[in-house]
Amino acid sequence: MNYSKSIQKLIDLFAKFPTVGPRTAARFVFYLLKTKKEDVDKLIFAISNLKKNVKTCSLCFNSFEAERETCEICSNPGRDKSLLCVVEKQTDLIAIEKTKKYKGFYFVLGGTVAPLRKKDVKKLRIEELKKRVKKDPQIKEIILATNPNTEGRATALYLERVFKPLNKKITRLGRGLPVGGELEYADEETLSSALEGRK
Amino acid sequence: MNYSKSIQKLIDLFAKFPTVGPRTAARFVFYLLKTKKEDVDKLIFAISNLKKNVKTCSLCFNSFEAERETCEICSNPGRDKSLLCVVEKQTDLIAIEKTKKYKGFYFVLGGTVAPLRKKDVKKLRIEELKKRVKKDPQIKEIILATNPNTEGRATALYLERVFKPLNKKITRLGRGLPVGGELEYADEETLSSALEGRK
Repeated sequence: MNYSKSIQKLIDLFAKFPTVGPRTAARFVFYLLKTKKEDVDKLIFAISNLKKNVKTCSLCFNSFEAERETCEICSNPGRDKSLLCVVEKQTDLIAIEKTKKYKGFYFVLGGTVAPLRKKDVKKLRIEELKKRVKKDPQIKEIILATNPNTEGRATALYLERVFKPLNKKITRLGRGLPVGGELEYADEETLSSALEGRK
Repeated sequence: MNYSKSIQKLIDLFAKFPTVGPRTAARFVFYLLKTKKEDVDKLIFAISNLKKNVKTCSLCFNSFEAERETCEICSNPGRDKSLLCVVEKQTDLIAIEKTKKYKGFYFVLGGTVAPLRKKDVKKLRIEELKKRVKKDPQIKEIILATNPNTEGRATALYLERVFKPLNKKITRLGRGLPVGGELEYADEETLSSALEGRK
């Protein structure tokens, strides 16, 4: 005996979600089977609203909801036009915004380049980023805020080469011990970065 | 800056799914934002079909899709009417069916009783199970196929007490080393069960 048609169909679709395998997908389906019809209707409504209401900013590729062409950040005249922070994905942008320490603009790259996998480049918004930087002479500094892992570093290196000819200041986020972390448990690379970045 | 309204709404709904926290829920939403509209429509369609097409069997509480009152198993006259296997949830039923070794009937309990938490009992289909067993004199053996963990054992103990007055044979699934497992890595309890259950 297998799952019935409607159940299997939905399991297959949930199994395409990030981090979800067939077993978790099945749990999701049985969760929905147990959920009241009006709550499932709310979920259906929220999914259709997502595609209807959420737009992508034409400047930074952040997503937003409003009757404008650009997002809240890009249409804010009070922000620092000399700074452009390149992030892998929108959740990274939101993490930086939450610090309230950054007042410049952003660019959402849409992913990373794995080392030695040059075809990944096509999936990123490299051309759009180049165009944005060339068009805007007010940008003085490009902050490469990719993740401190192999892919993030490879991507930052790649972008550094791309932007070298443009003569802008290029920086990366500081490395070091995380606040609240313990020296004893820090990996060697983090500790080396912390030593190099001491002040 | 926070997520926009439609995004946050859907994050909140996905975060109610089993095993999903707010971070994973956000990943799901960004996955859907990147997904083509027709694929998202397929998902919406599959979710509404689920609630429309899938029914619960009035005998075993398994879910099924057909113009009948009972599921494929309960409406199969070729199955062994003397056996009733009580499982916690439908996925367990399917796991047992896949062995092709069991030809009796099932009853999906709908969960477990945590030890010392008697109010959990109300969430289970204990009354429905009692009614089913009392109504059907052909049932000779009740197999308590709950999970081999604390909750599963507590539930089996509880059911054993419930069924004692009915004078049916009550069994549990055999415990022992899993096939392909290694003695060296088996926990003590499994190893003790394997010793007791030797043949």
